[in-house]
Amino acid sequence: MSLASPAQESRRKPSIEAIVALTRDSMGEVNRMILAMAGSNVALIPEIAEHLISSGGKRLRPMLTIASALACGYRGGDAHVKLAASVEFMHTATLLHDDVVDESDLRRGRKTARTIWGNQASVLVGDFLLGQAFKTMVEVGSLTALDILSRASAVIAEGEVWQLSASKKLTTTEADYLGVIEAKTAALFAAAAEVGPVIANAGPDLRAAMHAYGLNLGRAFQLADDVLDYRGSTAALGKNIGDDFREGKITLPVILAHARGSEAERRFWREALEENRNDDGALAEACRLLDRHGALEATVARARGFGDAAFRAASQLPRSEIREALLEVVEFSIDRIN
Amino acid sequence: MSLASPAQESRRKPSIEAIVALTRDSMGEVNRMILAMAGSNVALIPEIAEHLISSGGKRLRPMLTIASALACGYRGGDAHVKLAASVEFMHTATLLHDDVVDESDLRRGRKTARTIWGNQASVLVGDFLLGQAFKTMVEVGSLTALDILSRASAVIAEGEVWQLSASKKLTTTEADYLGVIEAKTAALFAAAAEVGPVIANAGPDLRAAMHAYGLNLGRAFQLADDVLDYRGSTAALGKNIGDDFREGKITLPVILAHARGSEAERRFWREALEENRNDDGALAEACRLLDRHGALEATVARARGFGDAAFRAASQLPRSEIREALLEVVEFSIDRIN
Repeated sequence: MSLASPAQESRRKPSIEAIVALTRDSMGEVNRMILAMAGSNVALIPEIAEHLISSGGKRLRPMLTIASALACGYRGGDAHVKLAASVEFMHTATLLHDDVVDESDLRRGRKTARTIWGNQASVLVGDFLLGQAFKTMVEVGSLTALDILSRASAVIAEGEVWQLSASKKLTTTEADYLGVIEAKTAALFAAAAEVGPVIANAGPDLRAAMHAYGLNLGRAFQLADDVLDYRGSTAALGKNIGDDFREGKITLPVILAHARGSEAERRFWREALEENRNDDGALAEACRLLDRHGALEATVARARGFGDAAFRAASQLPRSEIREALLEVVEFSIDRIN
Repeated sequence: MSLASPAQESRRKPSIEAIVALTRDSMGEVNRMILAMAGSNVALIPEIAEHLISSGGKRLRPMLTIASALACGYRGGDAHVKLAASVEFMHTATLLHDDVVDESDLRRGRKTARTIWGNQASVLVGDFLLGQAFKTMVEVGSLTALDILSRASAVIAEGEVWQLSASKKLTTTEADYLGVIEAKTAALFAAAAEVGPVIANAGPDLRAAMHAYGLNLGRAFQLADDVLDYRGSTAALGKNIGDDFREGKITLPVILAHARGSEAERRFWREALEENRNDDGALAEACRLLDRHGALEATVARARGFGDAAFRAASQLPRSEIREALLEVVEFSIDRIN
């Protein structure tokens, strides 16, 4: 089947309600674990952690760990809870450092930690969260899970450095860019989903399937975000429309419009993204050019392709409510573009 | 025995030559491992790593891991090399982030990475090195070693945040300060030494002994550094005399001189450290006050006390050349103050 027409699959709009409902109990434990891991006598740590925790993120990554463990038959212990909380801390640490590197003032519509507490605290508290993540995942005692998550940690950081090197460079190719989002976003989705079958003692087929599910869901998710940055509403996006544009971020829509553009249009993109001529007029022009070359539609098509791959991978799970919920997450991640 | 008069122990000046010689072969492997771990297609990573690797640090922490493993009878595999390289990467990542947080321009007499490549690259490459460290220590496959090192990682970061919160606050007590250096410096020394007996399958007594050795050596080392910042030479220190003073760092000598000072002197310390009135005249006055209250001597005495504890701990190792070398490192760490 294809995700090209999700409306044919179901009359209601795809949502994450099903996965939220099915993981609610475990996610309650994850939240308690997160609060415990953020505990410290150094007051600044729980203060900043509380700001991040209460920021209204969807907690999609830890939810993937919980759901994939349950879908693979994990029962009993708290390994899924500890790994899920560790995954969320890895993600939160990355956000803290990202906001410093990108000099971002808003995230999910709220002031970033660096705006309130400064860059120094953001760097160091990020390091603390990462340390707590590793400590907690070591407690689980699965060397395979540790291998998966520690590799992801190195890959994510490598992707961040790559993105910094490539930032504002319109010579970035589509292949380059897909490499970056695989490292920056998809690697953690893949690791979060893959540790589920590992702690459930499922076979290598399910492990490979959940890895592929997470990887392709992550790719689709990021490409959808890239489209939303030019077409979403601030409320849905939790950041401002055109943030990527103003930060000179080279995302897939831009790469495609630039490649398909005239010489004059390429000059526009260079001036806008490499030389920061990015006022509201320039943003409007960028949207016109993206539209002229079908760059957003082409990006959506690629997101759907990755979504299809994620869908096929999760279809290998044994039939269950939670499998259906994981499949719906894929539809949701792409449907939110509309 | 006491370290109070090392001259009575041996006519020559204590040095790290013996431990360097005895760990030379393994440290060669550690260096190759470090280069491999710093490898990446993202050119910025090996560039920055090379700058750090060639900076002429003593590599004391990985040397402790190698020496403590060998002293406890470890033979054969490369677990000690992988853990030593991981320890060095944990340390290097901390330095990269520290220099960003402290806005330092010089380290060991050379420009810091942030001065050459910027804060953004320093934050992200630090994250990469930490990720590589975890990945490499997971490869060793010892959950006990992972537990020790991941705990140290969280403790170090917590200490850094604590120090940031307490920075420029003269209300910091001696006990507070000892807590900070235990977290910031001594915890990694302790972990580096403790994983040696773990991979050598030594018993719990040697594990506790090497932990105590590293912890107390680290405390002594940091206090000696604090004294050197007011009394050393730039060449020996690898940073400028008075750096701590100009950065408003509250170290033990300052805490003691402040506590023992008159009301007027306390006002001087507040203006100098909390309000940045720290020109060369102020530095000279600070040195006079430290001298008047015997603050440097009192700090040295505390360093010697920790050195004695480290010495007693390592004395529990089986007799060997490498044990003697570990004992000499303790003497060296304090003797360099003179």
